[in-house]
Order: sequence, then C-alpha cells, then structure tokens
Amino acid sequence: MKPVKVGLLGLGTVGTGVVRIVEGHQEDLQSQVGSPIVIEKILVQNKAKSRSISIDSSKLTEDPWEIISNPDIDVIVEVMGGIGSTKEYIMEALSRGKHVVTANKDLMALHGPEILAKAQEHGCDVYYEASVAGGIPIIRTLVEGFSSDRITKIMGIVNGTTNYILSKMSLEGASYDDVLKEAQELGYAESDPTSDVEGLDAARKMTILSTLGFRAKVALDDVSVQGMSKVTKDDILYAKRLGYEVKLLGIAERQDDQFSISVQPTMVKKSHPIASVNGVYNAVYVYGEAVGETMFYGPGAGELPTATSIVSDLVAVVKNLKLGVNGKQSVLTYKEKKLKSDEQISSKYFLLLHVDDRAGVLAQITQIFAEYEVSLESVLQQPNPNNPDAEIIVITHDANKAAIQKVLQKFESLDVIRKVKSVYRVEG
Amino acid sequence: MKPVKVGLLGLGTVGTGVVRIVEGHQEDLQSQVGSPIVIEKILVQNKAKSRSISIDSSKLTEDPWEIISNPDIDVIVEVMGGIGSTKEYIMEALSRGKHVVTANKDLMALHGPEILAKAQEHGCDVYYEASVAGGIPIIRTLVEGFSSDRITKIMGIVNGTTNYILSKMSLEGASYDDVLKEAQELGYAESDPTSDVEGLDAARKMTILSTLGFRAKVALDDVSVQGMSKVTKDDILYAKRLGYEVKLLGIAERQDDQFSISVQPTMVKKSHPIASVNGVYNAVYVYGEAVGETMFYGPGAGELPTATSIVSDLVAVVKNLKLGVNGKQSVLTYKEKKLKSDEQISSKYFLLLHVDDRAGVLAQITQIFAEYEVSLESVLQQPNPNNPDAEIIVITHDANKAAIQKVLQKFESLDVIRKVKSVYRVEG
Repeated sequence: MKPVKVGLLGLGTVGTGVVRIVEGHQEDLQSQVGSPIVIEKILVQNKAKSRSISIDSSKLTEDPWEIISNPDIDVIVEVMGGIGSTKEYIMEALSRGKHVVTANKDLMALHGPEILAKAQEHGCDVYYEASVAGGIPIIRTLVEGFSSDRITKIMGIVNGTTNYILSKMSLEGASYDDVLKEAQELGYAESDPTSDVEGLDAARKMTILSTLGFRAKVALDDVSVQGMSKVTKDDILYAKRLGYEVKLLGIAERQDDQFSISVQPTMVKKSHPIASVNGVYNAVYVYGEAVGETMFYGPGAGELPTATSIVSDLVAVVKNLKLGVNGKQSVLTYKEKKLKSDEQISSKYFLLLHVDDRAGVLAQITQIFAEYEVSLESVLQQPNPNNPDAEIIVITHDANKAAIQKVLQKFESLDVIRKVKSVYRVEG
Repeated sequence: MKPVKVGLLGLGTVGTGVVRIVEGHQEDLQSQVGSPIVIEKILVQNKAKSRSISIDSSKLTEDPWEIISNPDIDVIVEVMGGIGSTKEYIMEALSRGKHVVTANKDLMALHGPEILAKAQEHGCDVYYEASVAGGIPIIRTLVEGFSSDRITKIMGIVNGTTNYILSKMSLEGASYDDVLKEAQELGYAESDPTSDVEGLDAARKMTILSTLGFRAKVALDDVSVQGMSKVTKDDILYAKRLGYEVKLLGIAERQDDQFSISVQPTMVKKSHPIASVNGVYNAVYVYGEAVGETMFYGPGAGELPTATSIVSDLVAVVKNLKLGVNGKQSVLTYKEKKLKSDEQISSKYFLLLHVDDRAGVLAQITQIFAEYEVSLESVLQQPNPNNPDAEIIVITHDANKAAIQKVLQKFESLDVIRKVKSVYRVEG
C-alpha cells in the first residue's frame, strides 16, 4: 500500500480540478488501484497567489526541477499548457523514468511522435485523453473500443468555443461579432480568439484523432484548415431553410489507405446526429467499416470534465505500474501516411452566388459546372431582396475539391457573377 | 510470432461476423498484437448446413469438448447464446485456463459474478463488451474512461427492437400492433417478442451497466421492469404535443450510495440528447458528478457491429496474454449494494385520466395529489373528442414512486375517474 506520488505541473482551472478529484474521490481511487494516490508537489507561477481550494503551501513550488528531479515522484500530470519549456520538462521527466499524463493538445499534435518515442525508450507511459474533447473518452474508444475495426471517417465538433458561437447564431439569428463578444464576456472565448475561430485548435485535435484512428503519423501540416470567422447569419439562415446546420467540423477520411484531414465550416443535414450538438458541447462521430455509425458526446472543456479524463488516465498509469507493464501498450502507427490530392478529395458543396438578374446567366453558370464535370443536386434562382441582382444557390453532388476550385476560378472571370458569397462543404 | 488460437462457440449471425473480421482485418490485428490470430475450431449445430461464408470444413465441429478440452486453444469466443450448457462450457473453459470473450448478456446478467470469480481463480480474462449495446464500447467507457468519476445516472436505449417500434409509431403515427408485425417481417423483432417488448432484455443489460457503473453487485431482480407493449399511438401523440418522445429507457440512479434501477416506457423531453435516438440504434447517456452529461451512440445489434466489439475484446485479451497480465484487470465491485425504497425513488410523472365532465372533478383530483404531497407542474383539462367524458393531463414535479402509487390507488375508488388511461415517468 505504498502511495503513488504525483507531481502536478500547473494549478490553473484544470489543475485545480485534478486536485479536487484526486482528493474528493480518494477512497474510490484507492479501491480501484490498491494504494493511495498522493499529489506530492505542484508547480505554480506564484506561491503567494490566493486560490479557490485550500492546499498545504509546502506542496507548492515555483521551481519545476523540484518535481522533475524528485526521485519520489512516479507520475507527472502536466496541465500548464504551452510548448517550449513544457516539452523540456516532459522530456526530462520521461528520461528519468517518470510517467506522464497530459492535457496538452498543442504539444501532442506538434511533438507527439518525439514524446512517445522518448517514453518507449525509457519504458514510460504517456496518456493524453484530456487533450481532445475534454470529458469524452474518445482516445480510448478509437484505440481500444475500435481496435478490430477499420475506421474510415472521423468527424468532430472538437472546439467548444466555435460551437457555442455557431449554435447561438443559429438559435437566435445573431451575428458572429455579437455572439463572439458575448462568448468573451462569459469566458467561453479568449480575448484573442484566433486559435479557436480560425480552426487551429480543432486542427491540432484532428491531428491527434486521425493519428490514432488511422494508425499513421499524421502531422499538423497535413490538415487543411479554414476558420469560421467569416460565417454570416445569412449563411446560417440559408442553411436552415435547406435543412442544414452550419458546424465547424474536423473531418478525417480514409479510402483505400489514403487520407484527407480538414477543418472547415460545414453544412450538416439536420438528420445527422452531429447536427444537433449545440453550445459548448463536443461530439465525435466515428464511422467504421464494420461498426458503422457511432457518436460520442460530452463536455469539451471545463475544470471537472477535463480533470476526469486526466485522473482516469492517472488510474490507468497506476494500474500499469502495479502490473509492471508501463510503456508496453503504446499505440503503433504502422500504416504509411498517404495523403489524398485535391483531385481525390470528394464531397458535396453549397454555393451562394450573387449574379446579374438577366437572361442566360444560369445557363452560363451551369455550363461551367458541366465543363469541370461537377454535377448538381439542386439549383435555386431567386431575386435578392436587398439588391438589384439575383441569388443562385447550388448544391452539388459529390465533386472533387480541385474541380470546385477550378469552377470558382472560372467564376472570377465571369462578369455576370457579381460575387461568390459563400462556399461550404456539405455533409450528411 | 506463435499464433493465438481461438475456439468459436456458435456460427450464427454474430459468429459469422467474427470470422469475417478476424480474417478480413488479419493484417491490422497482427500489427497490433504482434502475432496471427487464428480461429482454430468452430462449434456448430450441423456441420452440413450451407453457410454465407466459406469455411474449411475441418474447422467445424458439433462436439463442444473438441474446443473446450483442446490444449492448443487460448481463447474461447462464445456467441451461441443461451444459459444452461453455455454456462457449463464457459466454466469448464475457464477452469482449463482459457480466456473468454462473450456477447451473452443473459449469462452475464444472471451469472456474471460466478463467472468472473471462476476467471479470477484461474487467472483468466472474461471480456463482454458486446453483451450491451452491440457496437458501442460502453463497458470500456464506464470502467476505464470514467474510472475517476462517480457516475450518478445511466440512462440507456439498450434494446433496438423496441426503439425501432417506438420511433416508427412516433414518426408515422402507426399502432403498436402494426409496427410490431412489420418489425417481425424485417427481422428486427423475434416471432415471440416478449423478452424485448416486456423490457426483460433491457433489464439484463441495465444489470450489467449498473454493476460496472456503480461498482456494486447489482442483480437482475434489483431491476424494476415495465414493458412497452401497452404504449398506444395516442400516448405518443400526447407526448409529442407536449414536447416529449416516448422511449423504453433503462434508468440506473445513484444518490448517497443508494441505487435504483428500472426499465420502463418514459416520456423524454425532445431537447434531451437521448430523445432523438431513433430506429434500431442504441444510446447510453451517462451522468458523472465531475464529467457531467455524456452520451454514446451507435448500432445496438447486427452481425458486424457486434462482431467489432467481440474482436476488439479479443485484441485486449491477446495484448494481456503478451504482457502476461490476464485475469489481473477485473472490475472490482467494492461498493455495498443499497437499493432505494419506493419512498426514496423520485421522478416526474405524466398522467392521462378520463373523467366525468362535470363541475368539481378537477378539484377532487388535485386534492388527492395534495394529500400525498405530490405537487403539479402542469394540468390541462379538455373535452375528449371521442367520448362524452373529459380528459385531464397532469405532469407532476419530482414525486416519490410510493406517493404516486398511493395516488393511483385512491383514484381507483374515485367514481368521477372513469379510467387512468396512461402513467409515464418523465425525464429531461
């Protein structure tokens, strides 16, 4: 019954949650792993700062090496975020035989392979369930639950901030700027929201999910990224009228062992289970060749949901410790990474065009689609209530990305088209 | 690279799926576990029967002992169903040191503790992910994903047949009898549908889920069961009008370490994520003290979805074999089982009453609710279009089950009430 000693790097929102759960659920944790789990030392920026939980001040330190080089500490829980020195601390801890649990998506998306290799070398565990979709145990699901299946599609609402904004725009007909401001006041969006609204945060999470789902070393650069800051309330109105919701989706697809991974605002048919995921909630839809359609839904962030994932990882590490199998269950990325070209990436598209309101315009436009072999599912022309021009709405059948890009290029030189107002990928 | 040898008990729908996945995904499976997985022998009822897959006939046997007493076989995969001799085979296999993967909910719900104890005794694994909710890895989620949390509520649509029937009744306004007949023709319902429609199948699955979620030895008898064969299309119409869907829900709740587990047709608010789970799909909603609301959605049955769960379990067993840790990771049920009395079980209720259409009736009825301290959220009285009497619809606030039963008893002796048409638990 020797206690397992944990060093906690960071005591912000999530770190506080970790302390709460380890202390509050201590009896349950002990019953499961067979020995006490003790948070031995906590790295903070300022020991003197007042905090929302009472912590023995002798446990706090401002010196990371008091934790990393402490031979009594078995496991490091990293919730300080960032990349530079955080990576250094983790690499050092691993080389000293300490196991690591981290919630750091940036680090795992950018340096995952290097960190996992170091862990292998030293027989250490690295668990990172909390790095994607907060409280949803999606990494376990991909790695263990679907180990026997071939996953062909992962679609995720993996950023709560942008889902809050888009849901609110959809439910209330509000504008992006107004909802963003409100989200910032509520603490759902950062004062600089770039990483969320431009899709970078989602891209990091999709890097992690597609690496695990496809068993191939996907890199952040492999993800094609488009943010949602240009989505207008009119776009959402059109989408709803046609039976769609606009969601910022991460989409990873596999076909014949070739992959494509992207993040973009997407029109999702209302009947699709992911279309009704609203607010700050996250959801990951997984399609497997054998299992078919599945979806996993839950809180994407927050003190306790994220801490739940971290402490569940901690339980796994401690169980491995008892069984003497740390570092022996890492996920192998045995598949060669082959990315699809734009010619091979296929999906449906929605286009909203503002055009001159005169004879023959629709013929010219449909002619260009035909030229690039893009066939159309539905076309609607109507007067634009706010302008003297007309609106044309097109939903294509499955078309390759390169062809759509060529169509859009051609549209630029077509003087009857005043503006290509919106272009969205369509799912469901 | 010595191959791991599997004995398959049963070659019906799911057994065929297991063969397909093990053969079709062999390369992926080998990459993960480091050695071939071979299906060595298959128990069938009739070797001569023609089958939808081609199998070397020397692998088939009609004698279970050719598998159970075969020293070369490492793992038994049981997909024959049933309890009597199936249990005997599994117990024998365990006592000979063979690990077991099973999809048998009846067996695990009734004899789980005995089987798991035998496995412990002989250092064997028993995995049974496929026994609940087919392709959804819900057992892993409860046991590992939420190991650090205290789960307080599990609500499941865990029977696809009844969800198909209720969804169809809701979408098409059809009657129970008509949809049941159609479901039988489509193969979604058995010719004797009792076990599904009377909630017994769901009760077995809730026994398994609540044992794992609450870490206590819940028995099938602890589940209070009410079927859905009496749900009428009118009930569903009323529910929809009030913003609810009727679902056959398994509900397991924990409060102050006291449990209640039940299966019953329930009115679920449309905004609740589980309300929009339709057709043969299953979903399990899990509420944890720390994580909050989560939901896991996917196919509840079918050849390949169920086989995915089985072969993923097989992968776990083989990984344990390689690490030498079989039988060392069983879930401990360390919590004492304390069941709530009817006085302690609380929920909202919907009641539809047919009453005499005369003065003072509503006063008499509301007086009885008041007498048993059941407070009302909403009350609607309206003429009954088909009868000379009137209808009263009541939705209560949270009320204890015993009080509602007393109210209903009192209603029986009240001559202004012609009939208590429907009573439903309400969620969301």
